Amino acid sequence: MQGATYAGVMTTPLPSTPVPPAAPTGTRDRLLDAAADLFYREGVGVGVEALCRAAGVSKRSMYQLFASKDEVVAASLDRVAPRYRTALIPSEEDHRSPRERILHVFERLEALSASPDFRGCPFVATAIELKSPRHPGSLVARRHKDALTSFFRQEAEHGGATDPTLLAQQLTIVYDGASSRAVVQADALHGVAVTTAAALLDLAGLSRPAHSTDDAPQPIPAGQRPGGDRTHG
Amino acid sequence: MQGATYAGVMTTPLPSTPVPPAAPTGTRDRLLDAAADLFYREGVGVGVEALCRAAGVSKRSMYQLFASKDEVVAASLDRVAPRYRTALIPSEEDHRSPRERILHVFERLEALSASPDFRGCPFVATAIELKSPRHPGSLVARRHKDALTSFFRQEAEHGGATDPTLLAQQLTIVYDGASSRAVVQADALHGVAVTTAAALLDLAGLSRPAHSTDDAPQPIPAGQRPGGDRTHG
Repeated sequence: MQGATYAGVMTTPLPSTPVPPAAPTGTRDRLLDAAADLFYREGVGVGVEALCRAAGVSKRSMYQLFASKDEVVAASLDRVAPRYRTALIPSEEDHRSPRERILHVFERLEALSASPDFRGCPFVATAIELKSPRHPGSLVARRHKDALTSFFRQEAEHGGATDPTLLAQQLTIVYDGASSRAVVQADALHGVAVTTAAALLDLAGLSRPAHSTDDAPQPIPAGQRPGGDRTHG
Repeated sequence: MQGATYAGVMTTPLPSTPVPPAAPTGTRDRLLDAAADLFYREGVGVGVEALCRAAGVSKRSMYQLFASKDEVVAASLDRVAPRYRTALIPSEEDHRSPRERILHVFERLEALSASPDFRGCPFVATAIELKSPRHPGSLVARRHKDALTSFFRQEAEHGGATDPTLLAQQLTIVYDGASSRAVVQADALHGVAVTTAAALLDLAGLSRPAHSTDDAPQPIPAGQRPGGDRTHG
């Protein structure tokens, strides 16, 4: 019966999987991928009709999988979260310093914000659009935003920050404020996210390593200074 | 003819003004006040029917005043902006230092964010919800957000900041990121907005005045220390 939900408007072939072709998993993933994309581009106010049309899924199938659109909003954020995390947070195998691992997130944000398709952090956008802090989507948004803060706190602890919890909150604030700036200005961040995060890292005692190439100018060895060494001039 | 638009669902009496009772100004203000309130509480996706019902204005009147709902969104932000500015930015008659005048904005944000009705900065929320950077409402949002940044830059210049333009951008980022935090967490800011702004002011050279009472602990004169003066203990 559920095979019928695959008929019609599918434009992208489903990847080959060992599950039967009519498995609800495929429909679910397709619905959530379309929902995540549509909600991010147009807002969570997109109606069920438009959503099902974009996903190539019947409304009947949607309501077999989810009790309400509210649940689709929440589940679509959950589905997109690991991809968003991978796009931002360095892997466990990346053995750079805590400072560099934290700045990596802001460098990624600078890159993402330069895209004309950037519409801010999907979790913040969802929470702002839903208005109700008890909406299932707001709860999922909070959980995933907390995961970023946890990453910052863990790195801050490893780096010996004076107050890792405060620093993690501050870095999340810079992340979200910089994202808002990119949306409001409809412009890339031009380094201000990295510069601001680096300033807070300096203050918290996560110092710049000797070989660093991040934002602040490094001291130039005397012999390499243009115009010679002024201290001896 | 336009007198008919006042009939019916008005719940709040219009203030007495020297203009004739059926003047479009009254209808316009009432529509925009209702729109600003409704869009902030429920999002800019609220339909024209619901908007006109809340305002006690007929759709016909609305379309006599505005070509489209998009224009109502833009005009309602413009209408709310002076009140929002007054709630945040100290007056010209407030002769505290630039540092204190800047921190005043963050103290006000801390107070606003403690309300269960806080839904973030109305300009950022509108830009995020509208998605299109060319929407008339997005343009108005950007203009009013820029006014806050201009206030910060002007104060930063007066205070002798090392880079007033950068500091103003950073403070706007902290303002917007802290606002997002309050929305996502559905919680007050508990001082993190003021603390973060103060840290950036320190870094930029807008130093704490001797009589300051802001976030950082001040040295306590020896004779007033609880438990006596430990340096002599």
